[in-house]
Amino acid sequence: MGKPVAVVLGVGMGIGGAVASKFASAGYDVAVVARNKTYKTSHNEDKLTPLKKLINEKYPSCTVLPIVADVSVASDVARAFGVIRSSFKEEDIHVLVYNVGIRLLEGESVAVVSPEMVAEFFRINALGALLCMQQALPGMIAHNRGTIILTGATASLRGSAGMASFAMGKFALRALAQAAARELGPKGIHVCHVIVDGVVDMPLMKRVPKDKMNPDDIAAMYYFLSQQPPSAWTFELDLRPSTETIANL
Amino acid sequence: MGKPVAVVLGVGMGIGGAVASKFASAGYDVAVVARNKTYKTSHNEDKLTPLKKLINEKYPSCTVLPIVADVSVASDVARAFGVIRSSFKEEDIHVLVYNVGIRLLEGESVAVVSPEMVAEFFRINALGALLCMQQALPGMIAHNRGTIILTGATASLRGSAGMASFAMGKFALRALAQAAARELGPKGIHVCHVIVDGVVDMPLMKRVPKDKMNPDDIAAMYYFLSQQPPSAWTFELDLRPSTETIANL
Amino acid sequence: MGKPVAVVLGVGMGIGGAVASKFASAGYDVAVVARNKTYKTSHNEDKLTPLKKLINEKYPSCTVLPIVADVSVASDVARAFGVIRSSFKEEDIHVLVYNVGIRLLEGESVAVVSPEMVAEFFRINALGALLCMQQALPGMIAHNRGTIILTGATASLRGSAGMASFAMGKFALRALAQAAARELGPKGIHVCHVIVDGVVDMPLMKRVPKDKMNPDDIAAMYYFLSQQPPSAWTFELDLRPSTETIANL
Amino acid sequence: MGKPVAVVLGVGMGIGGAVASKFASAGYDVAVVARNKTYKTSHNEDKLTPLKKLINEKYPSCTVLPIVADVSVASDVARAFGVIRSSFKEEDIHVLVYNVGIRLLEGESVAVVSPEMVAEFFRINALGALLCMQQALPGMIAHNRGTIILTGATASLRGSAGMASFAMGKFALRALAQAAARELGPKGIHVCHVIVDGVVDMPLMKRVPKDKMNPDDIAAMYYFLSQQPPSAWTFELDLRPSTETIANL
Repeated sequence: MGKPVAVVLGVGMGIGGAVASKFASAGYDVAVVARNKTYKTSHNEDKLTPLKKLINEKYPSCTVLPIVADVSVASDVARAFGVIRSSFKEEDIHVLVYNVGIRLLEGESVAVVSPEMVAEFFRINALGALLCMQQALPGMIAHNRGTIILTGATASLRGSAGMASFAMGKFALRALAQAAARELGPKGIHVCHVIVDGVVDMPLMKRVPKDKMNPDDIAAMYYFLSQQPPSAWTFELDLRPSTETIANL
Repeated sequence: MGKPVAVVLGVGMGIGGAVASKFASAGYDVAVVARNKTYKTSHNEDKLTPLKKLINEKYPSCTVLPIVADVSVASDVARAFGVIRSSFKEEDIHVLVYNVGIRLLEGESVAVVSPEMVAEFFRINALGALLCMQQALPGMIAHNRGTIILTGATASLRGSAGMASFAMGKFALRALAQAAARELGPKGIHVCHVIVDGVVDMPLMKRVPKDKMNPDDIAAMYYFLSQQPPSAWTFELDLRPSTETIANL
Repeated sequence: MGKPVAVVLGVGMGIGGAVASKFASAGYDVAVVARNKTYKTSHNEDKLTPLKKLINEKYPSCTVLPIVADVSVASDVARAFGVIRSSFKEEDIHVLVYNVGIRLLEGESVAVVSPEMVAEFFRINALGALLCMQQALPGMIAHNRGTIILTGATASLRGSAGMASFAMGKFALRALAQAAARELGPKGIHVCHVIVDGVVDMPLMKRVPKDKMNPDDIAAMYYFLSQQPPSAWTFELDLRPSTETIANL
Repeated sequence: MGKPVAVVLGVGMGIGGAVASKFASAGYDVAVVARNKTYKTSHNEDKLTPLKKLINEKYPSCTVLPIVADVSVASDVARAFGVIRSSFKEEDIHVLVYNVGIRLLEGESVAVVSPEMVAEFFRINALGALLCMQQALPGMIAHNRGTIILTGATASLRGSAGMASFAMGKFALRALAQAAARELGPKGIHVCHVIVDGVVDMPLMKRVPKDKMNPDDIAAMYYFLSQQPPSAWTFELDLRPSTETIANL
């Protein structure tokens, strides 16, 4: 048996990167997956190389496996997990974190929002989590062990004006999380839904302003969840900065 | 100005047909839309002809416009509403009821459910409502008036084991309903989300067993919602038989 | 068997009065109960005499029974229902509406709010409903029939800053409503919780401003709920003006 | 400045005792408060002496201050905190845990449950938390720091048949938690509501059966919450054994 492995989908310098670093610090190997481009632009931004470098400087014994893939495309997900399974033992994949998300910066009314974009957002915000789960579950079920953490948002609990395109996917992700938790708990697999309600500070190394969320603080909770013994599992929790108005209770 | 028109999507001998009949009884003309076939089968069942006949026998002055369309396909929705607008005045379209829904009779685990089917269910259970809204909204917004009623289910509020494919779409529909209600209320358009929590009796004319829901009783509430004055609008309510365990509070 | 009777607790010129009038218009006799004074003041205001006069002018055949009682005091509730049972047949008491509520106009922080006032508010906002139910239930259970409607508020779903004293009672009332609905539904008794989310216009006969709720419109829903057949009962719904921001979804 | 102090209300061999032990293990001094008798019985059970002994054996440097008090009585709470403030510096009181709860083992219908018992349960399950907060808040507000953790239950989210007496208090406690979190967050005080959804194993030292919750595992989460930096606070989370059906999502 090798070191435990955490697979983190949706990795940049925000939550995903911090989660990968946290698991690395705790002795895990990590596979980090990103699309490396933003929606509807050709702007390619390599987030994985600096992250791998950053983690390996601090935790030289950690194997960091960077993979570029579009988690909303089944064949790409299958390819990515093929690489992961060829690099690590399937039985060592203990943790799956689905941190992928896409939203409009400026909202659009239901009267005019593009239905095709809404369908695409659904694939990215929700369906991709199912695709990734289905790759990880055979191994987890075979060993009756594993933790699956899904990143939610305020939009998981409320459809705000202008945000239908985002909320439809995030609501769907929460539905998936609930069904999965109910099905997989008795098999020893812990499913968590974390509602991140605030703006996450992105540049990983800079000083964090008082009203932004430090991704390392979020990552600490993700790691804690992965270590909960079966006697006291958490399904859902929220995280927000102390200065944030609590909208979605 | 002609008679008011109610457009009912997802019509058979259950809720949709009863809703169309109820609006016919109240002096509306009705457009009734159905796919007329079940998912993944070639089983074609003409639900619209007997419904039109039934309504016209009871309410001979009601114009019933039957349309076969797949509400999950944008071009089909555009075509259907083209027919509706050529048959009625756009300003007379007061009510839109999205009663379309698809679910597995036997649940399937998240570990094995087909992601493509989940995506298809999302299009039918949620995206189709957006497509239909976008056809109806220009007229409603121009006249600052209209009612949009979306049919939810227990699965709108909880992702049960085996039901991810259904719940993901129904959760997304509720997100859409919330965003739409917040956006459109100030424009005079009333959006409602009705959570139907029980088995609906299907053969319209038969005696209703005690533990099944009579679709006429559901339709009475849909009609009441459409008549609420702006001083006291309902966004969300549940309907269930008195004998049903209340699961989803 | 006499005319059906509706007992309305918490009656003034707002929701309670409008509900009593609505049931009177539908052929019910009504018992109307009020404290006739405001919390912690000696200001006595007779709300019942003008209401009885108003109802009898419009519906002369309606028996209106006005009772002054403090619904948070068990002995007073027992006395009030004693009067009701001596005026009407117990089997005719079909409807119980608990519309009593008390709140601070200006919120107070949890750090300084008086615990004794919080306990008193709990008795008025929640415990009184239990006291009244217990008076009405023996007759309703014996005849397997009845409707109990409890008036909630935004504070039934969220504890806002400064509003702990109100929200604690309204949350508790909702808990009572849920337990009662689950227990009494199988006995044929319909329990409803109506979340009124907006400012209700108080002077019953004046023109209603666009952003206030017309109590008659609220009363129409209460009456509709009382007439729902057991095949399609509503447990919970919200009512708000079209101009209100939907906070509590 | 002395060692940090955690005040734990509602202490026995379950969650409260485990929480006190956890904070002791982390270098806190602890004040532990219990009624030491059960509702409506004269059965006195000294829970505090064995707990103090247990903690001091493992953590000899921890000052354990046991106090017998009825947290539902204002004067008793004032006396208890007087003792606490005379034993520790007010500025050192960092953590307040309200773990008091009372429920009927066998449910009782709303038709027959004693209203006076319901009022008493409200005082114990909800009002006591306000009383204790009001004692702790002046010091916390003065130093802009502190964590307040309230123990909820499944009954915080649903009023089950037979459980009105318990749910009314637990709903009210959640309302208090929400209002307090909204008010106190901007003052640097972290309020958490933990929904414990399962049976907690009581005898602290015995082997924990698979389907019971180990109080030490619950205590680990309480401690983690108390250490969250303000950039990522949790307001609400659930804890349940992996084998528990997730009822209350």
